Amino acid sequence: MNDFGKIFKFTTFGESHGKAIGVVIDGVPAGLKIDEEFIQNEMDRRKPGQNKFATQRKEADKVEILSGVFEGVSTGTPISMVIFNTNQKSRDYNNIKDVFRPGHADFTYQNKYGIRDYRGGGRSSARETAARVATGAIAKLILQELGINIKSGVIEIGGLRAELENYDFAKNSEIFALDENKEEIWKSAILEAKKEHNSLGGSVKVKIENLPIGLGEPIYYKLDNILASAMISINAVKGIYIGNKEAHKLKGSQNNDEIKNDGFISNNAGGILGGISDGEDVELEIYFKPTPSIFQSQKTIDKFGNEVDFKLEGRHDPIVAIRGSIVAEAMAAVVVADMLLLNMTRTMDNIKKVYL
Amino acid sequence: MNDFGKIFKFTTFGESHGKAIGVVIDGVPAGLKIDEEFIQNEMDRRKPGQNKFATQRKEADKVEILSGVFEGVSTGTPISMVIFNTNQKSRDYNNIKDVFRPGHADFTYQNKYGIRDYRGGGRSSARETAARVATGAIAKLILQELGINIKSGVIEIGGLRAELENYDFAKNSEIFALDENKEEIWKSAILEAKKEHNSLGGSVKVKIENLPIGLGEPIYYKLDNILASAMISINAVKGIYIGNKEAHKLKGSQNNDEIKNDGFISNNAGGILGGISDGEDVELEIYFKPTPSIFQSQKTIDKFGNEVDFKLEGRHDPIVAIRGSIVAEAMAAVVVADMLLLNMTRTMDNIKKVYL
Amino acid sequence: MNDFGKIFKFTTFGESHGKAIGVVIDGVPAGLKIDEEFIQNEMDRRKPGQNKFATQRKEADKVEILSGVFEGVSTGTPISMVIFNTNQKSRDYNNIKDVFRPGHADFTYQNKYGIRDYRGGGRSSARETAARVATGAIAKLILQELGINIKSGVIEIGGLRAELENYDFAKNSEIFALDENKEEIWKSAILEAKKEHNSLGGSVKVKIENLPIGLGEPIYYKLDNILASAMISINAVKGIYIGNKEAHKLKGSQNNDEIKNDGFISNNAGGILGGISDGEDVELEIYFKPTPSIFQSQKTIDKFGNEVDFKLEGRHDPIVAIRGSIVAEAMAAVVVADMLLLNMTRTMDNIKKVYL
Amino acid sequence: MNDFGKIFKFTTFGESHGKAIGVVIDGVPAGLKIDEEFIQNEMDRRKPGQNKFATQRKEADKVEILSGVFEGVSTGTPISMVIFNTNQKSRDYNNIKDVFRPGHADFTYQNKYGIRDYRGGGRSSARETAARVATGAIAKLILQELGINIKSGVIEIGGLRAELENYDFAKNSEIFALDENKEEIWKSAILEAKKEHNSLGGSVKVKIENLPIGLGEPIYYKLDNILASAMISINAVKGIYIGNKEAHKLKGSQNNDEIKNDGFISNNAGGILGGISDGEDVELEIYFKPTPSIFQSQKTIDKFGNEVDFKLEGRHDPIVAIRGSIVAEAMAAVVVADMLLLNMTRTMDNIKKVYL
Repeated sequence: MNDFGKIFKFTTFGESHGKAIGVVIDGVPAGLKIDEEFIQNEMDRRKPGQNKFATQRKEADKVEILSGVFEGVSTGTPISMVIFNTNQKSRDYNNIKDVFRPGHADFTYQNKYGIRDYRGGGRSSARETAARVATGAIAKLILQELGINIKSGVIEIGGLRAELENYDFAKNSEIFALDENKEEIWKSAILEAKKEHNSLGGSVKVKIENLPIGLGEPIYYKLDNILASAMISINAVKGIYIGNKEAHKLKGSQNNDEIKNDGFISNNAGGILGGISDGEDVELEIYFKPTPSIFQSQKTIDKFGNEVDFKLEGRHDPIVAIRGSIVAEAMAAVVVADMLLLNMTRTMDNIKKVYL
Repeated sequence: MNDFGKIFKFTTFGESHGKAIGVVIDGVPAGLKIDEEFIQNEMDRRKPGQNKFATQRKEADKVEILSGVFEGVSTGTPISMVIFNTNQKSRDYNNIKDVFRPGHADFTYQNKYGIRDYRGGGRSSARETAARVATGAIAKLILQELGINIKSGVIEIGGLRAELENYDFAKNSEIFALDENKEEIWKSAILEAKKEHNSLGGSVKVKIENLPIGLGEPIYYKLDNILASAMISINAVKGIYIGNKEAHKLKGSQNNDEIKNDGFISNNAGGILGGISDGEDVELEIYFKPTPSIFQSQKTIDKFGNEVDFKLEGRHDPIVAIRGSIVAEAMAAVVVADMLLLNMTRTMDNIKKVYL
Repeated sequence: MNDFGKIFKFTTFGESHGKAIGVVIDGVPAGLKIDEEFIQNEMDRRKPGQNKFATQRKEADKVEILSGVFEGVSTGTPISMVIFNTNQKSRDYNNIKDVFRPGHADFTYQNKYGIRDYRGGGRSSARETAARVATGAIAKLILQELGINIKSGVIEIGGLRAELENYDFAKNSEIFALDENKEEIWKSAILEAKKEHNSLGGSVKVKIENLPIGLGEPIYYKLDNILASAMISINAVKGIYIGNKEAHKLKGSQNNDEIKNDGFISNNAGGILGGISDGEDVELEIYFKPTPSIFQSQKTIDKFGNEVDFKLEGRHDPIVAIRGSIVAEAMAAVVVADMLLLNMTRTMDNIKKVYL
Repeated sequence: MNDFGKIFKFTTFGESHGKAIGVVIDGVPAGLKIDEEFIQNEMDRRKPGQNKFATQRKEADKVEILSGVFEGVSTGTPISMVIFNTNQKSRDYNNIKDVFRPGHADFTYQNKYGIRDYRGGGRSSARETAARVATGAIAKLILQELGINIKSGVIEIGGLRAELENYDFAKNSEIFALDENKEEIWKSAILEAKKEHNSLGGSVKVKIENLPIGLGEPIYYKLDNILASAMISINAVKGIYIGNKEAHKLKGSQNNDEIKNDGFISNNAGGILGGISDGEDVELEIYFKPTPSIFQSQKTIDKFGNEVDFKLEGRHDPIVAIRGSIVAEAMAAVVVADMLLLNMTRTMDNIKKVYL
């Protein structure tokens, strides 16, 4: 079940320290100009090793398109993209080969499958998300043609929440901070956690602008529940809230968005009613747990059942929410692309627009 | 996209005030004893009109099985269940026929489809969730054979949070309250809101006990992201959190669950690592917005574009989280049933257990 | 796996002698006028008991729509249709309860599921095809709006092949004969087989006219391989041929259809190239085995492993190809409807037609 | 829709003259020994350029596994395999760039997508089937563990049919001939056609031995209709027949397979009853049209609408049925693998075997 989507549908593959990771996207409409520079630029936004707030591991994350594009334009056939793992130095994995790292999927993969590629977490590594970002870049190219725009930024780190939501600032911030007044405090907190060989959790906000009304397929492929599925599938994401995250504390009279001729007066709903986009900005927030890879001694067991004190080594993000925000954008983009395509088929009027 | 699941897969149908609502479940394993009394009992837990904390609308919610069961046992063919709408009195809908109720899906359905069944919200009504509860009852019958148990209760109402989690108490509480010390305060708050012609939001906790290790299909059909999809698809649910809902505020050293020979020392992960069940209880929390149906005057527009002051009439739950908890249990059950079946196919060892 | 289709997607349910059979169709576009008389008329074309060339069993086959239609128009929500089994007289099934009828699915259902509804074949009965015809009628209503037309007729019975293909004649023939010169001979052959308590096989031709160019989704959801899947799924169909059924005996120079400005010069391809409709008529032929229900003594075993001489009683079609042709039309219609909807999403041009 | 299967599910990608073709297989059970030599051996059976009865085009068809295998064993994660196109010499395609080759998909791809990769047929080339053979090899490795065996051979060429079915002979025949007495005549016919710059059609028989009873998911994912879908999806296949290909000409008394304690007395059904395997060999026959690529002048049009006389150049198989038989085996294998996995989930007994 490594696939996602119904029409704009992709399957990712690859392990952290295998030969390559990649994706096959089925259902990209023909006639889309494939801007490879844009794709690579998206990859670079997620890429590790760019500053001291992320892991120092270096990955070129160079995307190679193997199929589906002819003379710079999509042909309607599957677009396959591969990213070869260049940083898979054959180091010694003996220390994690048999032991289950707390907070990681080692224990569950071993028990489910009876075997696991332990090198760098194998398939359960966040390295897989590079393939999502490449996919999201293709989705964004479709969205751009319709004027749909996706933004994101970090809204909370280590329990300290932003008071501003400045997406322009976030774009150029090393930690994608939405609040310029919090950026320095957050940075300090991250470096502090790093020094303690610890890690931090955080929250990310995603905003989708200029969405047509009508996207989302009730009852089980609603815009919101599929966004939730997409977001929670991202490594380390434990929660999501659509719209005003205080809604469950409010009264109906406070939460209902009244309507005027030119749109909704408020947007507590986060742009979605009954699972369908209502024309307002879609707004959602997701919650990342702290990076499980910490460099302190922890109690765990090995696969033979022995209890051990385990201390991890290596290079890891002190907080995953930051680079995770780029993955969240990508997942939002693939959901919207799929919903755009599905929605086309929902009325006789559209059928006639296309065929008559 | 009115279907859910891959192997245990169901499709619901029906409108609030149409002839019937119902479901077809494909993929129920053969040889399951179908306890109709249990199914009806589950329906009755969700049924409206049972006390003053829920809508006074009466629905018998009598389930009729049309297929897939022979001499009390499932045959492996689709189980179809129908609930005829007995309370669909042909009252006058002129007041909501053309107007878009704030907080409801009227606006989006009309814009997406160009037509909508406005009677009682049509397909977007929470009445559809009765079909989910019937489906969940079948799923629970499978789970029972493996000793898996699902519990739920209300953990927050109107911003006031429980301090206890007593599922036995919740079971018999009129408002499914998890905290016996909060029950009366919550009841008062609900009646207060009712008197104001207003409504309240709330939160529900769901707990799945005795799950085998290994359920969940990474990367995009993980146990957690599909639970999220299932939960957010429920009417009025705006958010979900898996495990400790403070995880994003914690440090790695606080959030990681250390492991001993007899299991995990803590359960911040909520029983899921890398999208796969780890043998601990699965715990999650979902957030319901307040019922959008309130009886105060609200600004809105009609489908001709006129701005109007609208005041709803009728009978509605002052809070949807309460009856919603039963729906959440049902959705948890269908997800687990599907994951159980999928997981069977994931190792050569299992294949040999079945065929050799 | 009782569902079919990707966008126009339906799930059937029900057993021959259960309470009802039926279907839920998900993905019918909103705004389609639902002509109930047309649907019932399609049902009547398949209905048994109408002349001596079909089984004398009577079924009203009255379709009841439970959902998805409002004021005579589809709303975009699932259309559920139920046909209650009125002819399920509680007769004695002791003679077939434990025995496996040769040529039937009794043996395989029992072995696969460990249980089966033996009354009238249960789920494996061709009674299920009534639900397909109801579904096909909805699909045809969509096709009609685009001017697409589906025809069928019997082209071979008991090894004697038609020389003419007169669809207008077939429409009014009691045995849907395509060749008016063969009709009487075929009728005699059928009555002869009946008298011998035997049955006959036959072939059916299906023609789809006025299809737009471009329907079919390579590589695994091509128009032809999905038509094949649809047709072979019909009870008793053992084979299919698309286009000129001698193609595999020809040379390339004979089989290739040359192209002129106004279309193809010949149509050996049967209107499909590379899995995509080419604008010519889609033509295919399907092969029905003789009805397995014969009234002669046959060797078989019972479920306890005893060898027995078995002689069936009851009422059965002496040839299934005749009524099967109506089912084949229905399956063609659902495939085309699905392909029409899918194809809409395949180009940026179409996306812009709908959204910009 | 470049994917196939439900649990054992794969997606292929790539164009004839693009960088690479390949596949991602999702759902390969963990713990399968991946014999790369076997995979390559399967590739070599399909590989062009091996004798004068196939195209002289050379392709190394070297499979590279990018993911899903660790220390020689499947891990349960997606297995991605890539075959780089080494023979894609940048020759001049000006002669076919704008013209629609008769019998090919040029016309339909151009009309459907508005763009096509014309080099060697792009995605519509039979080169894609190399990815199927790699996939089929993985499926066969699963089947081998259960003792299931798949065989194939050519049973008819240019209208001349085999009288013997000798699969051992076929295995070593240059043209995979099932009948040793026909091999020379067939070879002569092929060389004759080649000399005339023409091509031949043919038929292939596939046999699946030692299948467990119970595979196949009624009503729409039956073993036979999915085999049909799989087979007709192969380039140039126009028809299929399951079991005795004269069934539609027979009477019920001739066609029904009587049953004894040790199995069926005959096998007209081709091993499938009601869409479910009955324990006998599955037997089917498929019909290949003649290679559309011939080197004679043909009438066609170009994409600007001009009528032209077109004469193809290049290297092509004089008959596709021969190498197509290897592809048919592969497709049979993937269908059986999927059905094996699905069937595991169909009874409570199996569930208990795995979990209790």
